[in-house]
Amino acid sequence: MTGPIEVIGLDADDTLWHSEIYFDRTQRRFDEIVGRYVSRDVDVPSALTAVERRNLDRYGYGIKGFTLSMLEAAIEVTDGAIGTTEIGQLLAAGRAMLDHPVDLLDGVDATTTRLIETGYRLVIVTKGDLHHQEAKIRQSGLVDRVERIDIVAEKDPSTYLRVCASMGVAPERFCMVGNSVKSDVLPVLDIGGHAVHIPYHITWEAEHADHDGTVPTLSSIAELPDWLATQA
Amino acid sequence: MTGPIEVIGLDADDTLWHSEIYFDRTQRRFDEIVGRYVSRDVDVPSALTAVERRNLDRYGYGIKGFTLSMLEAAIEVTDGAIGTTEIGQLLAAGRAMLDHPVDLLDGVDATTTRLIETGYRLVIVTKGDLHHQEAKIRQSGLVDRVERIDIVAEKDPSTYLRVCASMGVAPERFCMVGNSVKSDVLPVLDIGGHAVHIPYHITWEAEHADHDGTVPTLSSIAELPDWLATQA
Repeated sequence: MTGPIEVIGLDADDTLWHSEIYFDRTQRRFDEIVGRYVSRDVDVPSALTAVERRNLDRYGYGIKGFTLSMLEAAIEVTDGAIGTTEIGQLLAAGRAMLDHPVDLLDGVDATTTRLIETGYRLVIVTKGDLHHQEAKIRQSGLVDRVERIDIVAEKDPSTYLRVCASMGVAPERFCMVGNSVKSDVLPVLDIGGHAVHIPYHITWEAEHADHDGTVPTLSSIAELPDWLATQA
Repeated sequence: MTGPIEVIGLDADDTLWHSEIYFDRTQRRFDEIVGRYVSRDVDVPSALTAVERRNLDRYGYGIKGFTLSMLEAAIEVTDGAIGTTEIGQLLAAGRAMLDHPVDLLDGVDATTTRLIETGYRLVIVTKGDLHHQEAKIRQSGLVDRVERIDIVAEKDPSTYLRVCASMGVAPERFCMVGNSVKSDVLPVLDIGGHAVHIPYHITWEAEHADHDGTVPTLSSIAELPDWLATQA
């Protein structure tokens, strides 16, 4: 490897494996179940988003907090009219999300292999629920390809400085790859690192952010090794 | 400092601050609410414990998983007879636990100060929910006294080897202090480290374990500096 980038940081949810698609599916099930108990003019999805946002500081990221917010929103928006059966169905939907097998995105398996063969050192940097993220990483089959796994509460510049320090690499030799401009791109640019944006087809409302168009954007992780080669 | 112990690992919940007392209080509220819907011969606490144990692999440790298990158990043990109002009350009880201010155990403030002054290096090693543990550590006022904070999914020998490696200390110069024989004592002895058991007056059922009586047991963290001095 001759280029300036030595270490690749990989986001996990919606970069290595599908995640938001399951939230999206469960949200639609929520809309369907709760929709039976409210008049047509009630905006059920917005009611859930409002409760999620209200609870974000309290629950943090992940499926358990999402499930608790679903239950709270279901009771609130139906003014308590929703039944215990439906509450049980929403609880079961949350468990099903946690139990869902890890489903790697296209190109992840071959690309991570190729990056290691090329001499890059890999680190997973992911936000969210410690217990669930560890379970997914174990199931992913990627654990032996990465040097470190950093499961962090927030992805801000100080988090990325700690990641670089733990990997023993200067920020200018670190490149973060992920689907969130807000979490994976902007804070890394802030510390003088590199970032590559690989959009997922759904973005969680709380992760919406724009960049100025100068950030390298790839349509698939499979394009990453060639892009890195151009940086060498 | 002349003794062989250089680094003190501190468990957090029920070692630095009260935790189980809030679970216990909420469990009694659960028993009271759910008890109204079942006949007298139903063992409500055991029903909750059974659901918690069934969900432990799925939810891991912490209040969010506990709250979800309460809701599941409430519906299950009452055969769906419990009302949405009560479900809302249990959800609110879970939120109240998360929102409870950090309440340091007696002696923690003075003892951690004294340990640092004596030259010991401190690391917090705690299991559980990343988001909530980080919030508690921030609120505790202890963050500037510790060199590292390791929030881990499981406390097993390999976890403690990683902690020692991160602190740059050999296990025989590391001493873990905590209220759980299973999590804070046995796995540390297993890697050749030291451990001190400081029982809390309530132990969560899943943490029950015994030691052979040779493990140093203190009645308060305030006794720790003197015990360490005897090891020098």
